[in-house]
Amino acid sequence: MKTITVLLLAILSVSVPAQTAPPLMGFSAESSARQRELESKFDSVLKADNLRDWMKRLSARPHHVGSEHGKANAEFMASLFRSWGYDTRIERFDILFPTPKTRLLEMTAPEKFTAKLAEPALEEDATSGQKSEQLPSYNAYSADGDVSGDLVFVNYGIPDDYEELEKLGIDVKGKIVIAKYGGSWRGIKPKVAAEKGAIGCIIYSDPRDDGYFQGDVYPKGAYRREDGVQRGSVQGMPLYPGDPLTPGVGAVADAKRLKVEEAPTIMKIPVLPISYSDALPLLKNLEGPVAPPSWRGGLPVTYHTGGTGNVKVRLKLEFNWDIKPAYNVIAMMKGAELPDQWIMRGNHHDAWVNGAADPISGMVALLEEARAVGELAKTGWKPKRTIVYAAWDAEEPGLIGSVEWVETHAEELRKKLAVYINTDSNGRGFLGVGGSHTLEKFVNQVAKDVPDPQLKMSVWERRKAALMVNGNAETRKEVASRADLRIDALGSGSDYTPFLQHLGVASLNMGFGGESGGGSYHSAYDSFDHYTRFGDTDFAYGVTLAKVAGRTTLRLANADVLPFEFGNFADTVGQYVKEVTKLADSMREETKYMNRLIESGALKAAEDPRETFVVPKPKVEVPYLNFAPLQNALSKLEESAKRYEAAGRPLTLSPSVRASLDEILFRSERSLTSSSGLPGRDWFRHQIYAPGFYTGYGVKTLPGVREAIEQRDWKLAAEQIEKVAKVIESFAAEIERASSMVNGQ
Amino acid sequence: MKTITVLLLAILSVSVPAQTAPPLMGFSAESSARQRELESKFDSVLKADNLRDWMKRLSARPHHVGSEHGKANAEFMASLFRSWGYDTRIERFDILFPTPKTRLLEMTAPEKFTAKLAEPALEEDATSGQKSEQLPSYNAYSADGDVSGDLVFVNYGIPDDYEELEKLGIDVKGKIVIAKYGGSWRGIKPKVAAEKGAIGCIIYSDPRDDGYFQGDVYPKGAYRREDGVQRGSVQGMPLYPGDPLTPGVGAVADAKRLKVEEAPTIMKIPVLPISYSDALPLLKNLEGPVAPPSWRGGLPVTYHTGGTGNVKVRLKLEFNWDIKPAYNVIAMMKGAELPDQWIMRGNHHDAWVNGAADPISGMVALLEEARAVGELAKTGWKPKRTIVYAAWDAEEPGLIGSVEWVETHAEELRKKLAVYINTDSNGRGFLGVGGSHTLEKFVNQVAKDVPDPQLKMSVWERRKAALMVNGNAETRKEVASRADLRIDALGSGSDYTPFLQHLGVASLNMGFGGESGGGSYHSAYDSFDHYTRFGDTDFAYGVTLAKVAGRTTLRLANADVLPFEFGNFADTVGQYVKEVTKLADSMREETKYMNRLIESGALKAAEDPRETFVVPKPKVEVPYLNFAPLQNALSKLEESAKRYEAAGRPLTLSPSVRASLDEILFRSERSLTSSSGLPGRDWFRHQIYAPGFYTGYGVKTLPGVREAIEQRDWKLAAEQIEKVAKVIESFAAEIERASSMVNGQ
Repeated sequence: MKTITVLLLAILSVSVPAQTAPPLMGFSAESSARQRELESKFDSVLKADNLRDWMKRLSARPHHVGSEHGKANAEFMASLFRSWGYDTRIERFDILFPTPKTRLLEMTAPEKFTAKLAEPALEEDATSGQKSEQLPSYNAYSADGDVSGDLVFVNYGIPDDYEELEKLGIDVKGKIVIAKYGGSWRGIKPKVAAEKGAIGCIIYSDPRDDGYFQGDVYPKGAYRREDGVQRGSVQGMPLYPGDPLTPGVGAVADAKRLKVEEAPTIMKIPVLPISYSDALPLLKNLEGPVAPPSWRGGLPVTYHTGGTGNVKVRLKLEFNWDIKPAYNVIAMMKGAELPDQWIMRGNHHDAWVNGAADPISGMVALLEEARAVGELAKTGWKPKRTIVYAAWDAEEPGLIGSVEWVETHAEELRKKLAVYINTDSNGRGFLGVGGSHTLEKFVNQVAKDVPDPQLKMSVWERRKAALMVNGNAETRKEVASRADLRIDALGSGSDYTPFLQHLGVASLNMGFGGESGGGSYHSAYDSFDHYTRFGDTDFAYGVTLAKVAGRTTLRLANADVLPFEFGNFADTVGQYVKEVTKLADSMREETKYMNRLIESGALKAAEDPRETFVVPKPKVEVPYLNFAPLQNALSKLEESAKRYEAAGRPLTLSPSVRASLDEILFRSERSLTSSSGLPGRDWFRHQIYAPGFYTGYGVKTLPGVREAIEQRDWKLAAEQIEKVAKVIESFAAEIERASSMVNGQ
Repeated sequence: MKTITVLLLAILSVSVPAQTAPPLMGFSAESSARQRELESKFDSVLKADNLRDWMKRLSARPHHVGSEHGKANAEFMASLFRSWGYDTRIERFDILFPTPKTRLLEMTAPEKFTAKLAEPALEEDATSGQKSEQLPSYNAYSADGDVSGDLVFVNYGIPDDYEELEKLGIDVKGKIVIAKYGGSWRGIKPKVAAEKGAIGCIIYSDPRDDGYFQGDVYPKGAYRREDGVQRGSVQGMPLYPGDPLTPGVGAVADAKRLKVEEAPTIMKIPVLPISYSDALPLLKNLEGPVAPPSWRGGLPVTYHTGGTGNVKVRLKLEFNWDIKPAYNVIAMMKGAELPDQWIMRGNHHDAWVNGAADPISGMVALLEEARAVGELAKTGWKPKRTIVYAAWDAEEPGLIGSVEWVETHAEELRKKLAVYINTDSNGRGFLGVGGSHTLEKFVNQVAKDVPDPQLKMSVWERRKAALMVNGNAETRKEVASRADLRIDALGSGSDYTPFLQHLGVASLNMGFGGESGGGSYHSAYDSFDHYTRFGDTDFAYGVTLAKVAGRTTLRLANADVLPFEFGNFADTVGQYVKEVTKLADSMREETKYMNRLIESGALKAAEDPRETFVVPKPKVEVPYLNFAPLQNALSKLEESAKRYEAAGRPLTLSPSVRASLDEILFRSERSLTSSSGLPGRDWFRHQIYAPGFYTGYGVKTLPGVREAIEQRDWKLAAEQIEKVAKVIESFAAEIERASSMVNGQ
């Protein structure tokens, strides 16, 4: 318990003043002092009012991709960047963006009901009535269709849920499913439903997960009201994100395009999101088995699975399958010493409707950060490395703006781009960071230097306090004993994906949250009024985000040597290796146990014989896998990380050697990719981090190995272990090269 | 995994036929064979139709204590017992039983609402309209009162919930609380509320725990409808149960009685149970902090704590504080060889309203069992020991019939009563058994010999299958490796309490359930119609309960030596000792950790500074307790159990020695009691099992030690460790006496 005391007392210590502070990672003592001075100037330039004013303007009207206001926003931001001294251009891509022509959902039996599919204008919300410009509630890249059939409630609509339904004797073939939002990224639900033979998919926001169960609903409180709907894309992003018609290449004017019918990431069945007031009459009428306890939501009904034929619904959807222009804003400030080493910062600017929180709350922090960097540059300072700011369009339909840009400029980016730093939405509360663990130690140092705007401590200390109070036993123990707070691994859901997972660029994603809960996500109520009442109301955390992301950018841009560190990465990969090993072991035990319950009849005997219970078939037993290649590769990685740590003082090297060292360091992340990508989805090249094929946003680490195990493909798992082991070994070899260079060999 | 296979295959093996079956515990090979033949005759006599007919009759009208139909039921059952050859008497006690004169609950602000407090008659339920005879919904032994005040939602109203409220800055002094049913026995809620300064208490059935969230509501399904109310007693049973006016002595005609004002077990504040339709308008209007996630129920509102002054309610309750007659039916069949060793079977007969499930479903199984035993006796067979059947009155208001009877006959019972076997309600599904662990091995053997009426296996095998499928990892492992299934420890909630916890009579409580879920408990809808649609509809499990309880009774009555066994008991006590040791250790760590979070400011830093958060005061650190006396006593117990196990063949002893041995064996449970009882509640004498002072029904094992630790009274904990250790040692000494007797020393 000793360590805990010490660390807890550390929480309350005030930040060390710049002169006595330890040197920054990648900086010498002198350059550290200069950098801290620069950051102090940077901080003093930041103004919360700018964030407020820009949010008001950017979210004044709906600004989805292809909208007038969206284009105007891009042009406005470009003019701002230019005024701050950036070399700025708007890059246009022409991309497939379907919008609804017909939306009909009706119940024809046992009673007649037509879903309203509308979010009413509210007096308390000035922009909620902009009906002519709003995108109605829909799921982009749903199929066209006019389907009628029985309704089945499938919980979150993930594969496990269908296993439960099978046991209950319910199938969805030829039927329409209704799934709750949550439990996976939304696009998984219709994908799995279609795989199981369903002909249509309805997704609704259950009030237990996203509504009155969580807190008072809008406009009394922040949470989703009964008629609020979550819009969103359902394109097959786990296969490849971006424009469905131009996989792997930029959607420039003359790009070769697939036909809409050929695009594999367009959903195969019609899908529609609805509110809980529209879902209630449907769910109330369902019969059949009572849904398992964990499936039941917050509506005042008994949740049944349906699928018994008594509820018939019709879902009719037609879309305009239009090509729309997407406008990325790219603003560069050339590096004075290493112009071909780029540090990039991005946030998207398109929204589903007015998008004050998503994405404008992050966008305005980026703008203010860029303005402050511009102010510094006006005093004569220039970054060593090139800084690039980006405002992405068309993120909402499928990360399209960033993906197309990355695919267009892939060759140059592979050479030059050192780090990509993403933000998206921002709120009040605690710092959250995800990204490449080679930057974990660095980002911990950054977070220790930024004060929390509400309490007298750093954002790092506040985050640590939250983990110590709310973490489970394992987290508490780790937080007390580990020097750095862990950052999350990145799955998908924002614009870091093409950089990290397609290109192999070390990336970070950051934002604040936890105290600005609410349910405006992807609805017409994600507005300036909502955000300034319930979000980061005084933009104090917007300014703080500018400080964290700005410091991250400035330190990376100015460092004497890029502050990559490999001990934390090796520690993290070590965790992942343990996880996949344990996964196989626990699946083996569980499979053996379940098969015996099945074969002995115990599984059946534990069920009520008056209820339908279909005993599942025994599964093939889990073989022992040879994890040795992975474990050996991990050993090499650990050794190489230690060697680099011990490799003395890269800061004393000559500038040209340091530049070469930088390149080895930042390109090391490339060696974590494989050009053949992940099984069945070669767009995703990173072998350590990927969005799950059946989670969508949720990360799968060591994805090739982990997903092969999860899908019980033992041959593939063995192959993937070899493949990932080689990738880790080649990464370790790069670190060895870096160490040799530092040691002058 | 080897052991699992073997045991799983064992599940499917059919019961061994009587001739090759292993000898019954306490029987020689020959007497085993005779006994099995007797049981086979016994089984053949049982008729499901009798259970149905008697349930129809006994539940035809409301039959609470003091009602006309209740008295008629007692007389009818007495006549049945007599007709079956039992020496039968009705024993009357005169007990305090308050019934409502005035019930008013209204909300006066922010809107006017008067609670309906009524369960409507339903067409589908023939007895639901017997308004003139029904007890209205109320909590017996609530105080009279007319109180008005702010309303505060207190979750389940247990001490932990008030700690949460304190952190949120909400207190209940001078206010009225509304608590959900569940999380503790109902009487704990007003007790704790009054301790915290509340002036009134409302208890409601939340639909998440007891309503539509669980399943379709009555009459479509079995679950509690929006206007269904759970009646129930709130007398201070954890202090002492039974008639509040005659603690420790029988409420016979000339007993010395306390005045109503003096009775410590009458609640200090008015308490009223309500339905969820009556609770909804109150909860909907509450303001203040949003209730913690685990507090939120299934109503379509945001759950707030209230306590902010906006909701005002008035609760006015007046009761008739009448003395009512309670009629116990006692039926004896004298033992042919050992008439002064009694085996007793009981079930209560009074209900809150019509009580088809509670208690009649158990009562009719007991009646059929008694009839079958009577049939056997008519063929010339007589039990060796005396069998006593009891139908208790006034269980619902506070186990009054059984407690007063036990207190009246305490001296005789301490001498003669070997085992008490209780049933209460019964349903369809899986056997559940609780009781003295000296009978665990015996009752496992009984359960292995009774076939499940739905599946081709014993009720023991089916219970085991359920544990293997639904148990957690620890349970699964234990079930696979331990010869016997564990029985539960008994807290309170039915008539075993005076026998086990006041007298120290080894007791069992048994029943089936798990497939007859529902929400008729203590409502006007606990009816013949409800039970025969949703309960044990064909009374197959009623007959099966008669087989299990009948075998238990008959084997105990006929055994050559009483089948007590001490290895399982020692194993169980060993678990409890580990638990209390671990409890102190984990409280020590948690207290240290929390105190440091408090002192360092981390606890505060993890909270939203815009919300009220009152940092709790640090707690006194948990000292190391000397558990050695308990551990040494446990060692002696384990040794004595092994010695008795090894002590050879008691069945070869002479009848008179065996009779003496029996007495040592059954009286050994008395040595687990202490005449000074538990701290602050001397009525509860058992030192191993007790209902928790702050759980009410929920058991606390090693209660003196465990509750002292929970209440952080370290001095008391140390004293109780010594006390319980001595009790265990004196028990071990009794077992040593038994071994010596067997060994002829």
